[in-house]
Amino acid sequence: MSYLDQITSPTLLINEPITRANIKRMADKAQRHGKKLVPHWKTAQSREIGNWAKEYGIREVTASSIKMAEYLCGQGWDNIHIAFPFNPLETPKLNRLAVSQSLSVQLVNPVTTQKLVDGLSNPVGFFIEIDAGYGRTGVHISDFGTIEKILRIAAQSDKLRFKGFYLHPGHTYYTPDKAGIYEQSRQALHMLKMKYQSEFPNLVTRVGDTPGCSVTEDFGDVDEIGPGNFVFFDLMQAELGSCTKADISVCLAVPVVDINRERKEILVHGGGVHLAKDVLVDSEGNKNFGEVVFLDESGWTIPFDRSYLKSISQEHGIIRASDSLLERVKVGDLLGILPIHSCMTADCMAEYLSLDGKKIDHCEGQ
Amino acid sequence: MSYLDQITSPTLLINEPITRANIKRMADKAQRHGKKLVPHWKTAQSREIGNWAKEYGIREVTASSIKMAEYLCGQGWDNIHIAFPFNPLETPKLNRLAVSQSLSVQLVNPVTTQKLVDGLSNPVGFFIEIDAGYGRTGVHISDFGTIEKILRIAAQSDKLRFKGFYLHPGHTYYTPDKAGIYEQSRQALHMLKMKYQSEFPNLVTRVGDTPGCSVTEDFGDVDEIGPGNFVFFDLMQAELGSCTKADISVCLAVPVVDINRERKEILVHGGGVHLAKDVLVDSEGNKNFGEVVFLDESGWTIPFDRSYLKSISQEHGIIRASDSLLERVKVGDLLGILPIHSCMTADCMAEYLSLDGKKIDHCEGQ
Repeated sequence: MSYLDQITSPTLLINEPITRANIKRMADKAQRHGKKLVPHWKTAQSREIGNWAKEYGIREVTASSIKMAEYLCGQGWDNIHIAFPFNPLETPKLNRLAVSQSLSVQLVNPVTTQKLVDGLSNPVGFFIEIDAGYGRTGVHISDFGTIEKILRIAAQSDKLRFKGFYLHPGHTYYTPDKAGIYEQSRQALHMLKMKYQSEFPNLVTRVGDTPGCSVTEDFGDVDEIGPGNFVFFDLMQAELGSCTKADISVCLAVPVVDINRERKEILVHGGGVHLAKDVLVDSEGNKNFGEVVFLDESGWTIPFDRSYLKSISQEHGIIRASDSLLERVKVGDLLGILPIHSCMTADCMAEYLSLDGKKIDHCEGQ
Repeated sequence: MSYLDQITSPTLLINEPITRANIKRMADKAQRHGKKLVPHWKTAQSREIGNWAKEYGIREVTASSIKMAEYLCGQGWDNIHIAFPFNPLETPKLNRLAVSQSLSVQLVNPVTTQKLVDGLSNPVGFFIEIDAGYGRTGVHISDFGTIEKILRIAAQSDKLRFKGFYLHPGHTYYTPDKAGIYEQSRQALHMLKMKYQSEFPNLVTRVGDTPGCSVTEDFGDVDEIGPGNFVFFDLMQAELGSCTKADISVCLAVPVVDINRERKEILVHGGGVHLAKDVLVDSEGNKNFGEVVFLDESGWTIPFDRSYLKSISQEHGIIRASDSLLERVKVGDLLGILPIHSCMTADCMAEYLSLDGKKIDHCEGQ
């Protein structure tokens, strides 16, 4: 029985060979450069896909919330890093998880550092997150006062262990000069390493984002790389040049419920609650919420002429259809939609179906 | 113990008295006009909140997917309408549910109608969805050929029972002239009623959308109204004039993890996976992903000077903070965020916490 026979409603498909190839490619690249790959598991959020990653030598992962870390605990990871400025209200939960799992957290201010010093009952590592230009979060690269306050406060505790500096240059997503951002990130981390490694000889530096890690071939003296999205990729990454559409390893299967041949539109069951509302806007202002692929028993193929979701609401998706799609499509068919932002789509769907018909887990709830 | 003591991570709060007042106001309005209120439960998606609604005389609800209908089955509803063009792949599931629950579906084309005639094993009602200008879905109001084909095919089956015409004028969300749209909708449904009521004397017409139902006082000869969002409201509805901010009955509690007083920014754990990415953009192009309220033991208060989420990513939210907020806020505090689009936020969170500390259910998964 084909996996297709199981599908009656919007279903997130995962192509295991493409996913494995994506993981292997990044693992090989990290190895070639002598870097440790610690992928951000906010994209896959899956124990099973974690097991695939382990086959390519990956031993540590990153979570973006303590809930996600909890989901990944006990799966044999050498360490789980929670790459979100630590929320002191979650200290009791951190203590519970740290009993049996090596964990690290991310610190960006002295207040939270002090709260952890006061509240930790088990050893936990920490990275200081650095902002070298992105502006979302982290201690500004020039703010040595704060860095040193954090280090001094942490030193009061034998449970809070400094691991190094973490930098997420998320502005690679919207800045054309990715090489320039990478140079800036490398220099920032290099400077910090030079400044602090006599005091902390084991400190490591980590940088992570898929657009940068996909295109750069010069990681400088950075020790670890931490991209996330590369496991699945998506149309945003294809547009950024991180991958081709053929590298995208997840797609939403959606049922066709109506066809309007005059308007060249197809109505599918597939909207914001399935795909999330991330959008690409072209130079003429046309919105694209996902692109159509043809499903078959062995997976999907990308058509030559493009059809795409021109609008979505909570459950509805409207495809702007090419002539060749209109010729072959029928009400009751299934189409595939490559997502704009796979992390968000996977989070909405909270489960995958493999092409051999197996359900694959994803962390549930927020 | 205050409900606040239970919260350590992003949590969707519901204010029961405001929710009940919203339901009562719309139920009173429907009664005043002699209309039946059949709320769209895609917003609340909750059995418990359904029980509150029943106290105001509401006996039927609408779901936007068969999965949501399944969740609401067996809860004593006189009928559950699935207000999405029926997906023929779900006929077996519809048959299972229809054994013990009165259900109706929505039809927009002859193909699906024929599939239902061939596949139905239990009686199910149907509405024909009409498009009178919105352009998302439905049979165009002037396309009598399709309407009559659907009716003729349906008449072959003693299980598929015509209930009437359904119209969702969703363009009230972005068209200033809501009264004009309502006039158009009323006229469309009136014309259909005149045309078909000799053949179908029991046919009803239903129109539903929160902006229209909130502001209009003239429903004409429409029989039923079906708004959804009014149960919670949100900032988009406040901007549209459907409600005031004080009528919004859900808010996301978010932990404060960092404060940047120079930039007047507060970093919270609350992003796209919690709120969804719906956004309001003001005339100067500033984005607003949600607005700050102050939480206290009895609920929340709206501050005089506005602070709002200026950007969000998967888990991060950055608040543009007013001076008075900056004066009182500390790392480790909780703030409330009124959502832009409460249906999507509730769908992301899939659970509510009441102000007396009880968990309230929401349909899970897609």
